[in-house]
Amino acid sequence: MQFLMKPLIKSSLAKELILANLPAISAIDCPLDKCAGRILRQSIASDRPMPPFDRSMMDGFALDAAFAEAGKVFKVVANVPAGMPQTSIGNEPNSCAEIMTGAILPLGADCVVPYEDTERISESEIRIIDQEPIHQGDFVHKEGSDFASGEILIEPGSTLGSREIAVAASCGYATLKVSKMPSIAIACSGDELVEVDIVPESHQIRRSNDYAIETGLARAQLSASVRTHLPDDISAAKSQLIKLIRENTFIILSGGISMGKKDFIPGILEEQDLKCHFHGVAQRPGKPMGFWSNSRCAVFALPGNPLSTLTCLHHYVIPALRKAMTLAQDAPSFSVTLTKSEKVRPQLTVFLPVTIQDNNQALPCPPQNSGDLVRILQSDGYIEVPVGEDEAKAGQSYPFNPWY
Amino acid sequence: MQFLMKPLIKSSLAKELILANLPAISAIDCPLDKCAGRILRQSIASDRPMPPFDRSMMDGFALDAAFAEAGKVFKVVANVPAGMPQTSIGNEPNSCAEIMTGAILPLGADCVVPYEDTERISESEIRIIDQEPIHQGDFVHKEGSDFASGEILIEPGSTLGSREIAVAASCGYATLKVSKMPSIAIACSGDELVEVDIVPESHQIRRSNDYAIETGLARAQLSASVRTHLPDDISAAKSQLIKLIRENTFIILSGGISMGKKDFIPGILEEQDLKCHFHGVAQRPGKPMGFWSNSRCAVFALPGNPLSTLTCLHHYVIPALRKAMTLAQDAPSFSVTLTKSEKVRPQLTVFLPVTIQDNNQALPCPPQNSGDLVRILQSDGYIEVPVGEDEAKAGQSYPFNPWY
Repeated sequence: MQFLMKPLIKSSLAKELILANLPAISAIDCPLDKCAGRILRQSIASDRPMPPFDRSMMDGFALDAAFAEAGKVFKVVANVPAGMPQTSIGNEPNSCAEIMTGAILPLGADCVVPYEDTERISESEIRIIDQEPIHQGDFVHKEGSDFASGEILIEPGSTLGSREIAVAASCGYATLKVSKMPSIAIACSGDELVEVDIVPESHQIRRSNDYAIETGLARAQLSASVRTHLPDDISAAKSQLIKLIRENTFIILSGGISMGKKDFIPGILEEQDLKCHFHGVAQRPGKPMGFWSNSRCAVFALPGNPLSTLTCLHHYVIPALRKAMTLAQDAPSFSVTLTKSEKVRPQLTVFLPVTIQDNNQALPCPPQNSGDLVRILQSDGYIEVPVGEDEAKAGQSYPFNPWY
Repeated sequence: MQFLMKPLIKSSLAKELILANLPAISAIDCPLDKCAGRILRQSIASDRPMPPFDRSMMDGFALDAAFAEAGKVFKVVANVPAGMPQTSIGNEPNSCAEIMTGAILPLGADCVVPYEDTERISESEIRIIDQEPIHQGDFVHKEGSDFASGEILIEPGSTLGSREIAVAASCGYATLKVSKMPSIAIACSGDELVEVDIVPESHQIRRSNDYAIETGLARAQLSASVRTHLPDDISAAKSQLIKLIRENTFIILSGGISMGKKDFIPGILEEQDLKCHFHGVAQRPGKPMGFWSNSRCAVFALPGNPLSTLTCLHHYVIPALRKAMTLAQDAPSFSVTLTKSEKVRPQLTVFLPVTIQDNNQALPCPPQNSGDLVRILQSDGYIEVPVGEDEAKAGQSYPFNPWY
């Protein structure tokens, strides 16, 4: 049986093979208020200069800077709230308009003096009290100073966060083309698994990996369509798996893919015209991981130990889903400096859980075994210790990957 | 008019006042597969030892380590898949059981020898080929070694991510008590605002802050119940605002709260028995920010400039919502080292957008004005430059806050 698994490949090659062999995901139109976290599939361009007019940046008085100095009295000839068409302060040198933030600078004015730099003498008169010189353009957000009309502001492949949505809204995009959320199925396998609300016999354990995967995806703003369980009976498992392959673009399996006698899943996948890109990675945890795909479906087969499932989900599956959805660039990552060395197996890439401390430092939080999730609750994420190193070294810096 | 705003308070005090004056949020029962990102309101305890039995950690052969050594031949007397009740290998010294990962170690065996360390001689015989000594307990995940029955594994106040949900599932929690998602209303104000799908007149701009707030909340796994617009007409705005206060626990206003003549919102809030904790913070951007609350409603009044709205949302509102939902501890934060100095106003706490570079370094990405969101698209988050400093200094380390 031990020859069913292919030769172990390097973790970096596994990642490359995955990213190069993903099904394409189509674009859909999405209302602007439902776009949070989605990946943009079009560019966003300005439809007019920004700001579209000389815009007051303060509440105060709009006037001609040439006549402004401390002690000077101005007559308030107009009142300009935001949202009012452009008005004028006329041609008198000492006239001004009371103006609100966001309003159009009136004709004849070229600066705004904030309330706090003035005192009101009467309903229609104010005096400048600020001693600082007042210049043309003060507190005026100049028309077109942010960008011109027709400029591309956001490129396809961007993740849509609060800023992107604000810019899209100001440019008039009521809907945006974004990547469709692919249909993702999660299936755990093993007859030892019982439902969460069952009291297990001593040889049984409750289903947990499928819940963990679904939650991790949700925290990464991805959503699963199906969460199910495959029995150990070959023909029952086969018909379920064929249905999952037919109905979903991504399948995330947990368990049933190592060298065990009952691990017949790889055979079924290959029968279904899914190419095995690898099966077995020189890594810990997660050695038996495999990846199968064709142009319309990709299957991630994750080992069933809880920490293996969790680590492979974070390291391979979530980045792959984002890539398939055309994400151009990941969110910035941080590196951490280890405060304690930790021995590792040099033949393998080791994913070592760590707990973040102050000043970008991190303490190794090694699992005792790949079933040990409770200890991992103390960690915040993991670092990757490259193959060939026999310890994760205190004082050395490693890129940090957070748990979702 | 300039005396309506209270004296400016420090940003740190503003945050304290907010966190100390939030309405309480009740707990609800939530199905396990809908708990991603929610805040736990109970503790999670083990209902049996973990693992619940001596569990095989590999696919291979279970045997008595006392008889194992390289070259030794064993007779396969049983086949133990995961999920099968405990069996036995009998009393013969050279008997073993073929065993799968997750299965119960049979009586008579005290270790597992992985497939790869054996060769199969016949259907019923294997030979150990590994030269390393084999010990009692090898590849056995010992009953209760992770934790005993009844141990508290997760405390109230935790954020529920993939690991917490996996642990809750294995302990039999089909639902969890979590903080209710409070009813959150978002309202922008100003007659200069038009809907996103309208082509604005030159004095108008499209609504964008309310979309930005809703998106930022969604990225932080919080959801708004209402997103609306308040007109500049006092009586219309008043009746809308009173309804929002009656129907929501949190209200996030954008605009309408600085010193402008039309900024009548603070008056309405105080009439509605909402106490003003502060109105005006010594910070840039976001100086006119205010906070009102009573025991059942809190109102964040954010200045209407896009960057002010965005910064105050991230720095005050999201942490406050999490605190109200009883989050015990924020996700770990990272610090960044500036690669370039940037002058700031020493009288104010300055929130400076920065772009993350390699090695936890960051480049200042100063806005030209608080309406300038497009430039901020290049940034990844912001740092806080404390009051009293006249520059953010190259080479100095600052805590980093990511944009949602």
